[in-house]
Amino acid sequence: MKRYQVVGIGNAMVDVLWRAPEGFLERHGVEKGIMEMIDMDRAVELYAAIGAAKEVSGGSAANTIAGIAALGGRTAYVGKVKADQLGEIFAHDLRAQGTVYETPPAPPDHPAQTGRCIVLVTPDGERSMNTYLGVNDFLTPADIDESMMAEAEWIYLEGYRLEGSDCAATFAKAIRAAKTAGGKVSVTLSDPLCVERHRESFRRILKDHADLLFCNRAELLSMYETEDFGAARAAAARDVRMVACTDSGGGAHVLTAGGAVHVPTDPVDVVDATGAGDMFAAGFLWGLCEGRDPETCARMGNAAAGEIISHMGARAEADLTGLFGEKGLLRGRGGPG
Amino acid sequence: MKRYQVVGIGNAMVDVLWRAPEGFLERHGVEKGIMEMIDMDRAVELYAAIGAAKEVSGGSAANTIAGIAALGGRTAYVGKVKADQLGEIFAHDLRAQGTVYETPPAPPDHPAQTGRCIVLVTPDGERSMNTYLGVNDFLTPADIDESMMAEAEWIYLEGYRLEGSDCAATFAKAIRAAKTAGGKVSVTLSDPLCVERHRESFRRILKDHADLLFCNRAELLSMYETEDFGAARAAAARDVRMVACTDSGGGAHVLTAGGAVHVPTDPVDVVDATGAGDMFAAGFLWGLCEGRDPETCARMGNAAAGEIISHMGARAEADLTGLFGEKGLLRGRGGPG
Repeated sequence: MKRYQVVGIGNAMVDVLWRAPEGFLERHGVEKGIMEMIDMDRAVELYAAIGAAKEVSGGSAANTIAGIAALGGRTAYVGKVKADQLGEIFAHDLRAQGTVYETPPAPPDHPAQTGRCIVLVTPDGERSMNTYLGVNDFLTPADIDESMMAEAEWIYLEGYRLEGSDCAATFAKAIRAAKTAGGKVSVTLSDPLCVERHRESFRRILKDHADLLFCNRAELLSMYETEDFGAARAAAARDVRMVACTDSGGGAHVLTAGGAVHVPTDPVDVVDATGAGDMFAAGFLWGLCEGRDPETCARMGNAAAGEIISHMGARAEADLTGLFGEKGLLRGRGGPG
Repeated sequence: MKRYQVVGIGNAMVDVLWRAPEGFLERHGVEKGIMEMIDMDRAVELYAAIGAAKEVSGGSAANTIAGIAALGGRTAYVGKVKADQLGEIFAHDLRAQGTVYETPPAPPDHPAQTGRCIVLVTPDGERSMNTYLGVNDFLTPADIDESMMAEAEWIYLEGYRLEGSDCAATFAKAIRAAKTAGGKVSVTLSDPLCVERHRESFRRILKDHADLLFCNRAELLSMYETEDFGAARAAAARDVRMVACTDSGGGAHVLTAGGAVHVPTDPVDVVDATGAGDMFAAGFLWGLCEGRDPETCARMGNAAAGEIISHMGARAEADLTGLFGEKGLLRGRGGPG
């Protein structure tokens, strides 16, 4: 048995969550529903404009890893914070749930700060993310511990990481170490505009390395430069052995050699969509690691995502294992799998 | 018209909120429902033991001031943070709602940090607070701007501040400046054990300076060293012109020269009791500043407290003005006052 079920690599972020009135986005030039990269000046400007906020640990892959850890999975994470207060909060919140997190922080005199994401949650539950990368941009191949990657059943690569410099080499080192030891590679497309900016890098990862692709509809359409969702899914299935594509309230599509499965979602009042995709990936990956079939994995993904969108913040508040049990997703407790 | 309706003086805190399982308190030697002062070593130890948390601005008087600001009141706050990330978060969250906050932060090389309070919220909604004072202990009379105090209709003194050094002189300077300019003094007892430790200081403030006392049942019994709630209320009414004493689900008692009024609360599911007393004071003080009668002030206090205990965190999430309107507490909208 490998030491880790899933090792995630991504941008380490502290989220600054604020409920924004609908007009705020337009007044401040924020595009709804996507992730935008901002510099420190813009971060300061936006922060000055928002009201009293909540600070919670975030980061897409870190959310996924925290979700798997909350389900009892064996996890590790690689991502760069600074040795400052927000960096300590990020590290604490990951380790507190049992995730191994050993990436050396940038020193206190580093000019950049721990990354943060100003998340504007509008009354419709949609989130618009404004990301200051900070020291994440200084994650290098030297931060990839090959022996850790070799101990991973799955590595999980966050697409957002491609926004940073030196990412191709970092991912390449991780992929090589994991694959050499018989591990598998999963990747998430993260964001349609991120795909737009880094389509060639994504294409290489998908065609050459990925065993499992996570995405949502908008990201997949962007990836394959089409408006035809069915055609995009078919193209993805040709590139990657297993594809798990979410479609908001339209449920999840899982494509494998065994065919395509569509798994609808239960209706949920969306309080805050932040982290829905991350938690879908958490539930799905945990299911895979526990040897469950793709449909059950997707149901687990949907259940975990449903929990996260029912409250503010991208980390689980409810007992996910209990939730899975209630939905009949656990073995020996009336589950079908 | 004075520039400020209420100027608060207290400990500037960032709350670290965590839903603790019932057994955690006993295992880690935390006494339920009270505020305990801890040093940095204990703060580090407790923080290592808790799970993934949420960071939100807190501080008892700061919560009250933020509540009055959220209601549209004119407010200022005095309290000491450090020029670090948590200090910036605290300052941002106050200023974002329009509160004037000009206390100079301790410099980055100060050995202590911005104060924080590890708040353990048990399944019954009760909160147990573990306070690391940090740089709050370095608030001195020099931080009291006499011209600001002179511009206050009310100053609001947080009892917890008496835990710090130099507090008597700080409060004395503020009281003198406010009273000389015709302002009034309100004070909160904050915590039964805090009263135990500083009963003589509280007694002097109550007898010599206070125009309005906020407390809850346990604090009042501690103040007058009795088990007889009625006797304690009578004693308080002899010391202070107006007393507003809460009694959890038992409602609020207001004692004035005009007699005693009891105002029951609406039943609410307690998610997190953190900040209930602070928000009662916010609603009550705002009502007073708007010229409302004591009973209406108490109903406003109850309504604001009811909002705060319905979610995690001590700062309002709902539109308090809208809430007051729904309860018929606003003039010209069907309110009685």
